[in-house]
Amino acid sequence: MKNYKILSRIDDYRALKNLSEDEINTLIDEIRDYIIDVTSKNGGHIGPSLGVVELTVAILKVFDPEIDRIVWDIGHQAYSWKILTGRKEQFRTLRQYRGISGFLKRKESRYDHFGAGHSSTSISASLGMRKAKDLLRKEGWTVAIIGDGAMTAGQAFEGLNHAGWLDPEKFIVILNDNQMSISPNVGALYTYFNRIITNEVFQKSRQKLKDIIKKVFGESGAKIARKFEEYVKGLFAPGIIFEELGFTYVGTIDGHNLLELEKTLENVKKMRGPVIVHVLTQKGRGYAPAEQNPTPFHGISPFDKITGTPLKKVGTPPSWSKVFGDALVELAEKDEKIVAITPAMKEGSGLTKFADRFPERFFDVGIAEQHAATFAAGFSVEGMKPVLSYYSTFLQRGYDQVIHDIALQHLPVVIAIDRAGLVGEDGPTHHGVYDIAFLRAIPDIVISAPKDQQELRNLLYTGLKSGKVFAIRYPRGSAIGDKADGFEEIEIGSWEIIDEGKDISILAVGKYVSRAIEVKKLLKKYGFNPTIVNARFIKPMDEELLKEILKTHKYIVTMEDGALNGGFGSAVAEYILDNRYMNELLRFGIPDRFVQHGKINQLEEELGLLPEQMVEKIKDFVRLEDYKVVG
Amino acid sequence: MKNYKILSRIDDYRALKNLSEDEINTLIDEIRDYIIDVTSKNGGHIGPSLGVVELTVAILKVFDPEIDRIVWDIGHQAYSWKILTGRKEQFRTLRQYRGISGFLKRKESRYDHFGAGHSSTSISASLGMRKAKDLLRKEGWTVAIIGDGAMTAGQAFEGLNHAGWLDPEKFIVILNDNQMSISPNVGALYTYFNRIITNEVFQKSRQKLKDIIKKVFGESGAKIARKFEEYVKGLFAPGIIFEELGFTYVGTIDGHNLLELEKTLENVKKMRGPVIVHVLTQKGRGYAPAEQNPTPFHGISPFDKITGTPLKKVGTPPSWSKVFGDALVELAEKDEKIVAITPAMKEGSGLTKFADRFPERFFDVGIAEQHAATFAAGFSVEGMKPVLSYYSTFLQRGYDQVIHDIALQHLPVVIAIDRAGLVGEDGPTHHGVYDIAFLRAIPDIVISAPKDQQELRNLLYTGLKSGKVFAIRYPRGSAIGDKADGFEEIEIGSWEIIDEGKDISILAVGKYVSRAIEVKKLLKKYGFNPTIVNARFIKPMDEELLKEILKTHKYIVTMEDGALNGGFGSAVAEYILDNRYMNELLRFGIPDRFVQHGKINQLEEELGLLPEQMVEKIKDFVRLEDYKVVG
Repeated sequence: MKNYKILSRIDDYRALKNLSEDEINTLIDEIRDYIIDVTSKNGGHIGPSLGVVELTVAILKVFDPEIDRIVWDIGHQAYSWKILTGRKEQFRTLRQYRGISGFLKRKESRYDHFGAGHSSTSISASLGMRKAKDLLRKEGWTVAIIGDGAMTAGQAFEGLNHAGWLDPEKFIVILNDNQMSISPNVGALYTYFNRIITNEVFQKSRQKLKDIIKKVFGESGAKIARKFEEYVKGLFAPGIIFEELGFTYVGTIDGHNLLELEKTLENVKKMRGPVIVHVLTQKGRGYAPAEQNPTPFHGISPFDKITGTPLKKVGTPPSWSKVFGDALVELAEKDEKIVAITPAMKEGSGLTKFADRFPERFFDVGIAEQHAATFAAGFSVEGMKPVLSYYSTFLQRGYDQVIHDIALQHLPVVIAIDRAGLVGEDGPTHHGVYDIAFLRAIPDIVISAPKDQQELRNLLYTGLKSGKVFAIRYPRGSAIGDKADGFEEIEIGSWEIIDEGKDISILAVGKYVSRAIEVKKLLKKYGFNPTIVNARFIKPMDEELLKEILKTHKYIVTMEDGALNGGFGSAVAEYILDNRYMNELLRFGIPDRFVQHGKINQLEEELGLLPEQMVEKIKDFVRLEDYKVVG
Repeated sequence: MKNYKILSRIDDYRALKNLSEDEINTLIDEIRDYIIDVTSKNGGHIGPSLGVVELTVAILKVFDPEIDRIVWDIGHQAYSWKILTGRKEQFRTLRQYRGISGFLKRKESRYDHFGAGHSSTSISASLGMRKAKDLLRKEGWTVAIIGDGAMTAGQAFEGLNHAGWLDPEKFIVILNDNQMSISPNVGALYTYFNRIITNEVFQKSRQKLKDIIKKVFGESGAKIARKFEEYVKGLFAPGIIFEELGFTYVGTIDGHNLLELEKTLENVKKMRGPVIVHVLTQKGRGYAPAEQNPTPFHGISPFDKITGTPLKKVGTPPSWSKVFGDALVELAEKDEKIVAITPAMKEGSGLTKFADRFPERFFDVGIAEQHAATFAAGFSVEGMKPVLSYYSTFLQRGYDQVIHDIALQHLPVVIAIDRAGLVGEDGPTHHGVYDIAFLRAIPDIVISAPKDQQELRNLLYTGLKSGKVFAIRYPRGSAIGDKADGFEEIEIGSWEIIDEGKDISILAVGKYVSRAIEVKKLLKKYGFNPTIVNARFIKPMDEELLKEILKTHKYIVTMEDGALNGGFGSAVAEYILDNRYMNELLRFGIPDRFVQHGKINQLEEELGLLPEQMVEKIKDFVRLEDYKVVG
């Protein structure tokens, strides 16, 4: 760590009470500098974390994290929390393999009261803690800090609705409003917050009242006008939605004015019943490139600290997301029925170009994963061709809707599943490893995965033509394969033999097709010559080809970047035994445990998924002939 | 069908325009009588459907279901819709095998614009249709009818928030407010609706204004008072939450006054932007037993039409739900840390007794499946022992939260999964057949299923002691086994040999353990003597016992009431092949297709799951020795 004047000499938040106002201001600047420094090297969620430095300090001055529960919604706002709760030095290892997490994590610190990688859970979690504390007669406050973007998610509303009903004491929700979630926000609630901020409602009603009074009574109406103003202010004050749901609303508060924050939070502690405090912050505060251009600085790869430019290698292939987005634009040029739907992931899902080109046909629904799926189903009812784009991990929130509103009703929707497989530094809350297992249980759904750029284009084209519920999963990061163009329909359920060999057949899914080719190269040195199959359809499988393979290859190896429990390899196991084949099976994939954060290749090494490791396992697999005795 | 004066002579809704007011009133009575008649024989959702007869008639008079889209949230309110849109005669077969569905179903009628068995999807779906119609320049309105209970679910809020933002024309949400969902409602929104109805806000503010004016100006203030009243009425009118979200609010309307409904809907058609119409109805309207006691009449088994008493067989064993609820009360008597959480399923989940006995420790969170899981996690943080009760099918809505907020954080929660497996007449939206597959992919979770009443008690006891994330799944209907008492801890992951035999081993899950015993009896006639194993832990499996079984029995049969794709049998297949056993496997369970409605034994017959059918399959399985040739 750099030699910071204050930050270097304090241990943790307990030192705050002994610092002067000036020293605290210096500390705040230093924390910002430190966050910028570390994220410029490690990447990370710089924007959200820079916005809440003062808020974090204020919370740590007003509340006691040993007794009170502070629940940060989506832990990625909590870098200064980490720095001030005993992880100052470790913060250097942010998001690195075996370093500290980019989110809050209960295992990492006793001050991380609740971990969260997906948004909008903090009100629910802190309400549970609140009621538990009440029942156990434990001391302390519970405080949830939730962003304005996260407020658009249904779960946040469910939590508010329940909290307003339970009417707990010592329960505070801090609405951290930076007028952004990841992309600029959408939704009526956003308009509403905006209106609160500009105070339009209050201003309008106050003026209107004054006008009427003047009209009726002339200047002599001043007295009554003042009386009314006072009364009306109480009723027309912003935050009426929260008031109606049983909260006392306090706002708006300047989130970068430490004294105001402290004073407000102290006052709130004296209030009865649940309180919502509306704090205004600026995303990326204190770092010019992030202030000016907040979207790319929400979560970012390593960047040049001075200019803010990402340190990307020249000539990096396009991301899978970009290949998807570009292809979708091309297809939508020719087909007016195509619409794109994303729950707040426009940039991340590669849909910016589509949104610019076809604003009428682009729907960012906000953080609203359940709504997104059913909304897509509605388009399908009318004969449109909705393309519903999710990160794999967020699709978990739309699971029921995919089953009932889409698949059960046979409503054609293309579900583009981005960030499928291990995602790297974002860790266990963001790895997209369950989708194959949870989708495979749903009837009448096609699940596919492209081996390269061109195949992603072809699958998207096929999916849109298919009239089926058609999922396409592809990973985070740079796409595989040469620059792609054109579109070709692929027979649904057809696999592809990439390289014919014998004895061993590797059935690989998605990005692991190219890994299988690497593995084959290495295996050849040992005299093996496996057949490589691109299992581009996980469901339905190419049963004809599979039968052929099972008859002609004794050893079957599956490779997938998803959970082994119930995954693709599991489907092959089912097939082998259901059809009474006698083949041997070796499955590569994500074992039955949560995978932590780190670079993808580090994680893959830990899981034995690197080519050399796979080769060793396959060699053992093929050599072992000590079958267990049966019956 | 009985000889009804009007109903018997009309075909469908098109006849409405030719009927006099008196005739329509008679028709409404007749529809009610017909619904009561059919549900008294077939069972069904009588309460919701009786409440909306006038509303259905009004909608069919004001809108054109050939052009407009009418989306009933949870189709079970739509019995009169079915009767009036060409299914008058078929309605007699309601919920019967191969008869018409108890919910809306797109395949059943072109007037069923969207099927829904789970609540709160109608705004999302109709908004999708709305935007599609706009893009396609198709005529017509879109109308969603959603209950007040369904409004508490996050997805409804997501839909409202998005609709307010998109600001569509010809988009109407009808809030069907009967002050009940299944149980009496909870949530701040419910209080809010209630306040609207009593008009308290408006009354209070109007009175307050009048008082001030009088105080300041004496009786001469009458003129200004009137002016203000008019102005204030516009702002303080009920429905401000909806107004703030961009809707025009119209309410409240008497949902049993056909003329008022028609007039209002006609007026609403002239309004701009999205409109919400707040209609007040009475659940069970027109049937005294249901009016007086709405909860049991929400969805009911066949009953005596005159008295409303359920036609239950005497001496029926208690339901699994009751066994669970009673056991939980007993355990909670001795352990103050136990709390129970349900998303609006107090009665259905057998928790009424718990709620009465421990009101402080009982939490009905409303229809809020996402919130319920995270709320439970919050209790666990504080060292409480939350028991989270879901129907299997609704757990699909809390999937992400179970992964991230519970399992990933290793927060001990007992998840009691009721209605697991086929549920019968409620059909495909309610069968709980995916839970094993989607839970099995999650690390660090215990999944169990009891063979009988006593084992349910023991598993609940074990789960609460375990300090683990512990799921217990059990089916709908009467519990298996003798009256149970006491509690015994079961070693986690231990299976139980029920009956030792040879050659064949049946590994059965939950209620299929007793089926396996039946199957064994039948198989004995053919000279087979299978070993029966109670696979009470689906995860972790009893690997020690499984190894032993695999070594000593050539033929393995699995039985489960869940999806075969990724289910328990799939776990056994994975184990066999991962560990290079050479056994043969036959899996019984739910195949890869949606299962329709009907009595459970009819559905099981269709799926080949009756004992005699299983016996035939097992005989074939054991006799077949034509293994495919390998490599």
